[in-house]
Amino acid sequence: MSISFTHETLPQRVVFGAGSLGQLAAEVARLGSEPMVIGDELDVLPGAIHYREVAMHVPVEVAERARATASAHGVDVLVSVGGGSTTGLAKAVALTSGLPIVAVPTTYAGSEATDVWGLTSGGRKTTGSDGRVLPRTVVYDAALTLTLPVDLSVASGLNAVAHCVDSMWAPRADPINQALALEGIRAMRSGLPQVVRDPTGIEGREQALYGAYLSAVAFASAGSGLHHKICHVLGGRFNLPHAQTHAVVLPHVLAFNAPSVPAVAQRVASAFDASSAVDGLRRLRSSVDAPTALRDYGFQETDIPAAVEAILPVVPPDNPTAVTAANLHELLRHAWAGQEQR
Amino acid sequence: MSISFTHETLPQRVVFGAGSLGQLAAEVARLGSEPMVIGDELDVLPGAIHYREVAMHVPVEVAERARATASAHGVDVLVSVGGGSTTGLAKAVALTSGLPIVAVPTTYAGSEATDVWGLTSGGRKTTGSDGRVLPRTVVYDAALTLTLPVDLSVASGLNAVAHCVDSMWAPRADPINQALALEGIRAMRSGLPQVVRDPTGIEGREQALYGAYLSAVAFASAGSGLHHKICHVLGGRFNLPHAQTHAVVLPHVLAFNAPSVPAVAQRVASAFDASSAVDGLRRLRSSVDAPTALRDYGFQETDIPAAVEAILPVVPPDNPTAVTAANLHELLRHAWAGQEQR
Repeated sequence: MSISFTHETLPQRVVFGAGSLGQLAAEVARLGSEPMVIGDELDVLPGAIHYREVAMHVPVEVAERARATASAHGVDVLVSVGGGSTTGLAKAVALTSGLPIVAVPTTYAGSEATDVWGLTSGGRKTTGSDGRVLPRTVVYDAALTLTLPVDLSVASGLNAVAHCVDSMWAPRADPINQALALEGIRAMRSGLPQVVRDPTGIEGREQALYGAYLSAVAFASAGSGLHHKICHVLGGRFNLPHAQTHAVVLPHVLAFNAPSVPAVAQRVASAFDASSAVDGLRRLRSSVDAPTALRDYGFQETDIPAAVEAILPVVPPDNPTAVTAANLHELLRHAWAGQEQR
Repeated sequence: MSISFTHETLPQRVVFGAGSLGQLAAEVARLGSEPMVIGDELDVLPGAIHYREVAMHVPVEVAERARATASAHGVDVLVSVGGGSTTGLAKAVALTSGLPIVAVPTTYAGSEATDVWGLTSGGRKTTGSDGRVLPRTVVYDAALTLTLPVDLSVASGLNAVAHCVDSMWAPRADPINQALALEGIRAMRSGLPQVVRDPTGIEGREQALYGAYLSAVAFASAGSGLHHKICHVLGGRFNLPHAQTHAVVLPHVLAFNAPSVPAVAQRVASAFDASSAVDGLRRLRSSVDAPTALRDYGFQETDIPAAVEAILPVVPPDNPTAVTAANLHELLRHAWAGQEQR
C-alpha cells in the first residue's frame, strides 16, 4: 500500500496537567507583559485587564468591542479562559491584531487546537483559517472541567470521538492525523466512562480532556468527512443540538463506512479495545448512556428526504462507501429511529 | 493514572509520496525565488545555484563557505538534497541567515524533522536547537532511497526504531510523542523486512521513510533516553559505528526497561504486532538479519568497566529501571556477546 500525503503540522505549546493553571502566569509572561483575559469566571490572573462579554458564534459587534478594549489598553497577549465561544472571541481579536493567545479551555470544544476562526454578522457566519488565530500556548487543567455536567461531558466527549472517527477517512486524512485520532479514541474510550462513574474524580476528566485535544488536532488536519457533513446539514437545516446530533449519527456513519476500509476499521477497533470498530463504539456509547435517536431531538421521519437532498451535494467525493440517495436515506432512518448498529 | 506534560509541537509541512520530487519546484517557490541547492547529486533543480561541498559533522569552515555563497548570490531559500550531513549544512546556513529550508532527505537520518543543529570546529562538536534551522518543508520521495544499500538501510532503520523505543521513556516522553513513536515502530516493522525482501520495491522503502520521519519527530520531542546515552558513550569513547551500535544495544535496553513499565511495553508490543515488546523487536531484527554483537565492531569485553563508568553519570534520572553499575555491566556484557534477549 503506497503512502502519499501532504501534512501541515501547526506549532503549539501544550501545558497539560492537574494544577497546571498555576503555571498560567509564567506561560503568559513568555509571550507578553500586558495580558487581556477573555471570559474567565475564575479570575485566574488577578489584576489583569478583563473582557467578559462572550456570546455564541462570536458576533462581530462583540469582537469589535473586545478589539477596541485590547487596543485601548496596549494589550500584548490574550488569555482566553472558557469554552469554544470564549476561545473564538480571542481568535477574533488575534485575527486583526496579530496578538498571541494563551488558551485555557474549560470544555472539550477543541477550538484551542485549531487555526479556524468564525464570526457572525447579521445572523450569517463567516469562517476561515489563519495561522495568527492558532493559540501559541494551551494550558489544560482538568480541574477546570469538573463543573462540566456529566450529560454535557458525554455529549461533548462523543463529539470529540466523532472528530477522531471521521478523521480516519476525511478529505485530508493521512497516516499522521489518523495516528493522533486513534490516540484520541483511546483516551476518550478510557476517560468518558470514568467521568460518568466518578464525575468529581480527576482521572477520567484528564483522559477526556487529553482526548479532546487530540481530536481537535486530528480533525483540523484531516478536515470534515461524511459524518460532519451530515451533522452540519442536520444542525443548520433542522436546528438539532450540536453535540447530541454528533453522538447519535456517529455509529451509523461508522457502520456505513467501516466495511469499505477494513484495515482502518481494524485500527479503530483496536483503539476502542474491541473486536470491531462498530462494537467498540457501541460499548462506549452504552457505558455512558449516550443519546440514541434523532427523533428525541425534534427530527421527524418526514424530514429525511429533505435532509438527503441537502446532504448529497456535500458528500466528500472520496468517502469510502459510495453514497446514494437510497443508502443515505437508510442511514438517516436508522439515526432517526435510534436503531442500534452491530 | 494522571496525565501531566509540556509538549512543543514544531511547525512543518511534509509532502510525502513516490514522485513527490516532481513537486519540489512548486514547494520551493512557496518560500522564495532564489534557491541554493545543497548536496544534490541528482540535479533536482536545474539552473539553481548549487553548493556541493558536504562533509560529515558540518565543519565550521564548510558552513562559512556555504553561507558566503548564499549571501553572494542573494539566495532566499535553501534546498538540501541528501542525508544527515547535507541537511546539517543547510541548517548551519539557516542558523546565521534565517533562510528557510526545503529538505529532500535521501536516507533515514531524520535530521530534517528536528530543530537541532551541529557544527564541528577543531575536532570539537557544538550542538544546539533553534527554530530557524527546522526545515519549513520536507519533500519525501522514497524513490530517492532506492540506492541506499540494504545493510545500511537496515542499520539506519533500526537506528530509527531505537529513536522510537527510547522515546517511550525519555526525559520529555509524553503521550503525544509516544503515540508518534508507536506509529513509527509500526511503519518500520512493516517496512524494513520489505526492504530486505525486495530492495528495489518502493513500498517497503516508503514505509521505512515514513517511519524514519516519525522517529525523528518523536525523538526530537522526547529527548535522549537510556539507550541513546549508552550509544553516545560507546560511539564517542570507543569509536563504534553509529547505526550498528544502536542496532545492537537496543534489544538489551528494551529488555532492561520493559518489565518496569508494563503498560508502555504492551503498547510497544502491539506496535510490533507481537505478544511482547522484546519478542517483537527480536522478530524484526531476525527478519532483517540485524547486527547482534558489539564485539563484531571492535568493542572488547575489557572495555566494559570503563564504559559503565562513563555511562553511569549520564543515565537519565527517571529511567524506568534503576540503573546500577552491576546491572549496567550485565547489559553491556550481553550487548558485547550478542546474547539474545527473550
